[in-house]
Amino acid sequence: MEREEALKIVKEQLTDHRYQHTLGVMETAIALAKQYGADEKKAEAAAIFHDYAKFRPKDELKQIILSQKFPQNLLEYNSELWHAPAGAYLVEMEAGIKDKEVLEAIRYHTSGRSGMTLLEKVIYLADYIEPGRHFPGVDEVRALAKVDLDTALIQAVKNTILFLLKKNQPVYPDSFQTYNDLVMRQED
Amino acid sequence: MEREEALKIVKEQLTDHRYQHTLGVMETAIALAKQYGADEKKAEAAAIFHDYAKFRPKDELKQIILSQKFPQNLLEYNSELWHAPAGAYLVEMEAGIKDKEVLEAIRYHTSGRSGMTLLEKVIYLADYIEPGRHFPGVDEVRALAKVDLDTALIQAVKNTILFLLKKNQPVYPDSFQTYNDLVMRQED
Repeated sequence: MEREEALKIVKEQLTDHRYQHTLGVMETAIALAKQYGADEKKAEAAAIFHDYAKFRPKDELKQIILSQKFPQNLLEYNSELWHAPAGAYLVEMEAGIKDKEVLEAIRYHTSGRSGMTLLEKVIYLADYIEPGRHFPGVDEVRALAKVDLDTALIQAVKNTILFLLKKNQPVYPDSFQTYNDLVMRQED
Repeated sequence: MEREEALKIVKEQLTDHRYQHTLGVMETAIALAKQYGADEKKAEAAAIFHDYAKFRPKDELKQIILSQKFPQNLLEYNSELWHAPAGAYLVEMEAGIKDKEVLEAIRYHTSGRSGMTLLEKVIYLADYIEPGRHFPGVDEVRALAKVDLDTALIQAVKNTILFLLKKNQPVYPDSFQTYNDLVMRQED
């Protein structure tokens, strides 16, 4: 699918603010793909569609998780996690995206997972550092992303976990497994 | 077993410093048991024996984890975790402690676990706040322990996780699950 067609599809699903965010993720993902040797076209597609389901009703997202082969424990954790796996499903069904790598990069863009692919890392990180993002610690992750993908990713995942801990919120197991997996690989 | 006999057994296994720590845990555990309605004799026993295996050779601890029914993933994480489950085994074999609740309080005193018993919480917390402990955040947990056991425990587990995150160290999954379990119960 051409970029313009993909953007047109996604624009209808998003608020203006979220569409601008999507454009930022797209540019950042393409740059990271170029820098770290990921497939730029796949990075573009995954970035464009990553928040496709962001504004779907929670009930719809929940029904998709219940009816498809997604881990059911997602429903015990913050509903902010749901749009990623449900989005991967909807993007395949409604936008006709069939590429498994692209779909998995969408699926894991919020939680991460143990054993992330290069493309998944690029999308997770692009979503975190795109130019429209402004929160404590983002500049440090941006700086690290220029030097080392995994180090930047560890810092991003860690910031996310710290944010949740500070608010006494549960941390979805995939998120801390992402952290553990990355730091244990760096130790090796 | 009487307190003096138990202390005599343990003293032979520990350095003086660690024995003093054990006495502190014992006093604190009895006080917490009294305050929160746990069995004081079991709290005393678990506290006295909690660090029984602390100075056994790593290889011995590893062999116990390999040969007994302990989760094998312990061996992928910090060896500081090993003395707790291996200690529960050794305390049963060598000191003849048969009480399952006491043994489980020893087993989980470092990692915690999802669904901790009252006795397990008392021992975990006593180990963290006994008067000989001096590290950032311990006074806050001491203050919380006077008010609410679970709130104090959440803070202690959180501090432990934060400490590891700051050092880019892996966090044993049971520790995260302890945190998640406790905060999710408080939400209910």
